[in-house]
Amino acid sequence: MIKVGIIGATGYTGSELLRLLVRHPQVQVHVVTSRSEQGKHVTSLFPNLRGYIDHNFSAPDAAVIGECNIVFFATPNGAAMHQVASLLQKGIKVIDLSADFRLKDAALWAKWYGQPHAAGELLEQAVYGLPELNRKAIAAASLVANPGCYPTAVILSLIPLLETGSIDTQSIIADAKSGISGAGRKASIEHLYSEASESFKAYGVPGHRHLPEICQALNTLAAGPVGLTFVPHLVPMVRGIHATVYAKLQASIDPQELYKDRYRDEPFVDVMPAGSHPETRSVRGSNVCRLALHMPQQGNTLVLLSVIDNLVKGAAGQAIQNMNLMCGLDEVTGLDLPALSP
Amino acid sequence: MIKVGIIGATGYTGSELLRLLVRHPQVQVHVVTSRSEQGKHVTSLFPNLRGYIDHNFSAPDAAVIGECNIVFFATPNGAAMHQVASLLQKGIKVIDLSADFRLKDAALWAKWYGQPHAAGELLEQAVYGLPELNRKAIAAASLVANPGCYPTAVILSLIPLLETGSIDTQSIIADAKSGISGAGRKASIEHLYSEASESFKAYGVPGHRHLPEICQALNTLAAGPVGLTFVPHLVPMVRGIHATVYAKLQASIDPQELYKDRYRDEPFVDVMPAGSHPETRSVRGSNVCRLALHMPQQGNTLVLLSVIDNLVKGAAGQAIQNMNLMCGLDEVTGLDLPALSP
Amino acid sequence: MIKVGIIGATGYTGSELLRLLVRHPQVQVHVVTSRSEQGKHVTSLFPNLRGYIDHNFSAPDAAVIGECNIVFFATPNGAAMHQVASLLQKGIKVIDLSADFRLKDAALWAKWYGQPHAAGELLEQAVYGLPELNRKAIAAASLVANPGCYPTAVILSLIPLLETGSIDTQSIIADAKSGISGAGRKASIEHLYSEASESFKAYGVPGHRHLPEICQALNTLAAGPVGLTFVPHLVPMVRGIHATVYAKLQASIDPQELYKDRYRDEPFVDVMPAGSHPETRSVRGSNVCRLALHMPQQGNTLVLLSVIDNLVKGAAGQAIQNMNLMCGLDEVTGLDLPALSP
Amino acid sequence: MIKVGIIGATGYTGSELLRLLVRHPQVQVHVVTSRSEQGKHVTSLFPNLRGYIDHNFSAPDAAVIGECNIVFFATPNGAAMHQVASLLQKGIKVIDLSADFRLKDAALWAKWYGQPHAAGELLEQAVYGLPELNRKAIAAASLVANPGCYPTAVILSLIPLLETGSIDTQSIIADAKSGISGAGRKASIEHLYSEASESFKAYGVPGHRHLPEICQALNTLAAGPVGLTFVPHLVPMVRGIHATVYAKLQASIDPQELYKDRYRDEPFVDVMPAGSHPETRSVRGSNVCRLALHMPQQGNTLVLLSVIDNLVKGAAGQAIQNMNLMCGLDEVTGLDLPALSP
Repeated sequence: MIKVGIIGATGYTGSELLRLLVRHPQVQVHVVTSRSEQGKHVTSLFPNLRGYIDHNFSAPDAAVIGECNIVFFATPNGAAMHQVASLLQKGIKVIDLSADFRLKDAALWAKWYGQPHAAGELLEQAVYGLPELNRKAIAAASLVANPGCYPTAVILSLIPLLETGSIDTQSIIADAKSGISGAGRKASIEHLYSEASESFKAYGVPGHRHLPEICQALNTLAAGPVGLTFVPHLVPMVRGIHATVYAKLQASIDPQELYKDRYRDEPFVDVMPAGSHPETRSVRGSNVCRLALHMPQQGNTLVLLSVIDNLVKGAAGQAIQNMNLMCGLDEVTGLDLPALSP
Repeated sequence: MIKVGIIGATGYTGSELLRLLVRHPQVQVHVVTSRSEQGKHVTSLFPNLRGYIDHNFSAPDAAVIGECNIVFFATPNGAAMHQVASLLQKGIKVIDLSADFRLKDAALWAKWYGQPHAAGELLEQAVYGLPELNRKAIAAASLVANPGCYPTAVILSLIPLLETGSIDTQSIIADAKSGISGAGRKASIEHLYSEASESFKAYGVPGHRHLPEICQALNTLAAGPVGLTFVPHLVPMVRGIHATVYAKLQASIDPQELYKDRYRDEPFVDVMPAGSHPETRSVRGSNVCRLALHMPQQGNTLVLLSVIDNLVKGAAGQAIQNMNLMCGLDEVTGLDLPALSP
Repeated sequence: MIKVGIIGATGYTGSELLRLLVRHPQVQVHVVTSRSEQGKHVTSLFPNLRGYIDHNFSAPDAAVIGECNIVFFATPNGAAMHQVASLLQKGIKVIDLSADFRLKDAALWAKWYGQPHAAGELLEQAVYGLPELNRKAIAAASLVANPGCYPTAVILSLIPLLETGSIDTQSIIADAKSGISGAGRKASIEHLYSEASESFKAYGVPGHRHLPEICQALNTLAAGPVGLTFVPHLVPMVRGIHATVYAKLQASIDPQELYKDRYRDEPFVDVMPAGSHPETRSVRGSNVCRLALHMPQQGNTLVLLSVIDNLVKGAAGQAIQNMNLMCGLDEVTGLDLPALSP
Repeated sequence: MIKVGIIGATGYTGSELLRLLVRHPQVQVHVVTSRSEQGKHVTSLFPNLRGYIDHNFSAPDAAVIGECNIVFFATPNGAAMHQVASLLQKGIKVIDLSADFRLKDAALWAKWYGQPHAAGELLEQAVYGLPELNRKAIAAASLVANPGCYPTAVILSLIPLLETGSIDTQSIIADAKSGISGAGRKASIEHLYSEASESFKAYGVPGHRHLPEICQALNTLAAGPVGLTFVPHLVPMVRGIHATVYAKLQASIDPQELYKDRYRDEPFVDVMPAGSHPETRSVRGSNVCRLALHMPQQGNTLVLLSVIDNLVKGAAGQAIQNMNLMCGLDEVTGLDLPALSP
């Protein structure tokens, strides 16, 4: 059994990690930390887990954490970067669900996250944990930077086109929509039920932190800087991301075939039949990304539709997929669950 | 492997049966019928099941259905009663998720369901499929009448009190609230998103079909006719039932201890700590009923709070729990899943 | 024109007062205060009011407030009681939308609100602002305690029965359900979209602050202490209260006729046709309380269904109704708006 | 008083016309027709209007309709085109809220609406009822084609740029999101609460009927065929459209100033301060279109955010705005209402 620790488990990525890990056949949850909730039973915050876990939240204790084989950070941005090095030195593998190790460029990170990076020397060795791009590196990694939710949805929708140089890389538009759990489980007026329900809005149009993360991946795929306009929106629903991505086709290819080929062996990418309109609820609670492709009005603008559950493939599920790879397990272990719908 | 057939699988109970059965380790889905959707792939209606099932809906074919070990009816009321006898004769076990076999009194059934009962001779042998009441009979049954969603929530909240004669049986009030999936997956103006969201209402106050079903069970427990006022309401959410039940305590007991004792060994009834307020989302997608008890203001009115997922413990999950019992499997097989929350 | 001030206008009752007052033909909004948001334009918080108001939130300034004819307190509980006396001394009329002046008994208030009452000497003169009970006293009042949302819905459903002594006053049950705006516009995890949507729960079963307020009114109507069990629930919608009230009929009356008679001339109480099930959305944004009566199963238990918009008849609309009475205006001025549905 | 008839008033545009017209000071509702609901009281379908209207739905009767000054068609597409000519001959003005007279090209209409146009000779005289484009022509018109909801939101977002030739007209992308009331009030599985809530999807990507309508207006503004990709999406909310429009700036202009100038005198277009993110709820129930402009990342891609209430500025409110113009009334009469929020 793999002994697992979760640092900062009082948010939605933490509780979703727990939901999936308590059913994972090769995992034993060893420690669940939270400074703010220490001493409380995990199920007092997350009663859906009653009967599945019997831990209290504990204050972080290096000795206890040191007994783990793998540690997940579900902390706010800026916390993991102070703690990872000592874990790696003890031979503990780390998966960071925050943004601390996603960007390779410490200066760029500092600009977007408003503070200097405290562990710039680890950025190089951190592997960006998108298995569809980096499976081998993840399997060999000690430190994995788990991707953001928007980046997961957007990058997966573009990999085949960029790998084959099939689109104009200078005019990509990603119009993305997220459920409100993406904003996290912290008190805020903006995300109150009475503020967010029965309404729809864009936010962060001048610049969202997921923009440099998406660009970093797309630049690599395109072997040069892409031109991307990224506009996130808030949808009155709990879970789900829908990315609608627009790109100009420049090659004479059959996109549907291209995607089917590229993702044929991917356990968690589902290329839907031509003409489909994937719904976010079709992936609720599951680790799948469903994709559909359209070329409306016989123009050359491709419309890519990509849906994930932001808390699963966009966070906790992908983290466990990475854990499986890092630990030599079957990649789908513990993640083989159909979505809950309706 | 148990070969399973599902008759009329295009509604929410049918799709929920499929969601759970495709992951059940002892089950092989053999046939999935629908007259209206025959020939269509199951996942064209339920894309959340893509990758988990490869059946088309088929027209009902007695020969194919006859190859099953157990058949679930997820048909509208009034359909199963015409088909069950021939299956039983072939030695096939039947679990009916419709209301056809829930009432013992054919005349009462006819009154509430607006048609004569076509298989009155089977009513006696049909076992009411609430394992917490009838576990042994279910294990021995060939025909199980799977309880309604409201009855499951209400009856489970009252069993310990009625078994011990602790309340006034003539003044029970069950104020019940259901998510909208309880209305089924059929075109109707009343249950359109734009009609049902951002609103709350009672319905069926003069009489709801679940009233005689609840009374039948309570009467048995009370060994005489109870006086029950049952008012259902529609909540703008998909899944979940919350029953708030009011009863006058007549005995000098500790209700919290009574419930803990009565349900100590029940795998799917969770008596929460004193003072709790269970949320429906804490059971979303799971087969658990969570209960909490209150005696507000030191009066003698007991307030019982009972939550289930109407599609799971209130329908498909309970049906599988019954199947497990009827087939000699561990009762929790395939149902050991924490709820999805948030 | 009536010069109006609103103290503490950054919550939902404050913004709803503004929505209604900016269209009121006899009102001029003079000052809108908020300590936390002072200096910000009102429409930066409430963009729905763009074009209708050109005030900034200001710090409370006694001189400016002193220029008003009438002042609304939309402050948290415990604030108005420190400020009302000086306004009354200047001849300014006050309508307090908080709970500070709702209870006549200062000790009872202190018990439920967790602090001593700072203006107990004003409790006697404060008029409980339910026009359907106290119209004349309101018209003559200088200080009106605007009722709570639950009390408004529950009391209106019971007035005719209690006035005529038609029910058993010792076994009243009020099972009430509220939209989430009732929890106010303040940062809290419990009321985040991702916590409150797609779920239903009871809360405050051991005791809710609206219980003594309801009892005070019912006791007066019944001329003696009533026995009331009050259980509030949270509905995943923004606006609306639905009270389902259960009472045992003890007199040989026609409740439908009783209610029609009692409320015939009330501009904001709508007794619906027999057999109706009022929906909360039918009063969204309007000042109407809709009532329906049922006697299910020919028993003697009356089921009363009462719906209001908690922010209008349950708060800001009723406050304006009171203002109209206090200022000698037609009671419906500025409130004559059909509900927004769907 | 203007005598008004509404043909086919059982849908959401019909009920919204009624909500606004019953409060319009210059209007008398004369007749409300519905074949399917004839004989029923209007408020039995729309209880929010109780107290405001005392009509029954009636079967269409040429004599009664002939007594009107102005007739609104709120019928399904394909109905009005058979009935308008005879009304115009009687001197009755007509506003058609369906799509029958929106396209100038009968062949194009026939292609998109799947039937030949029955009144092609009227297409020329029909005025496209977007006051911000065609105010004078509307004032002089006998027949107004009330715009679609998506077209209203998208066209208003682009007028200033196209009028001034400031953008590349060949690469416009309109990513639009609509609340579910846009699908109308008719029984359908797809728009059930349990199908549409807690989910998000695109639909009609291969081609939506509002595409040619939008293009017709944009082509006129651009004096040549534009290249537009239009992708509609379904948002789990009742009311509201949010159009996110992407265009490449080609001129050296200040878009914020351009929009402020162009819309300075428009009563129902609100250009928000630079940096704003309009929310659909900020226009709920009101006739306003709120616009905001962004140039993210200092590129040349302009991001236009445009929100309306699809039932008001996108349907009934705009129809009344047109009526006011056609009848020589102040354009804002009856429409001067702040939005309902939250």
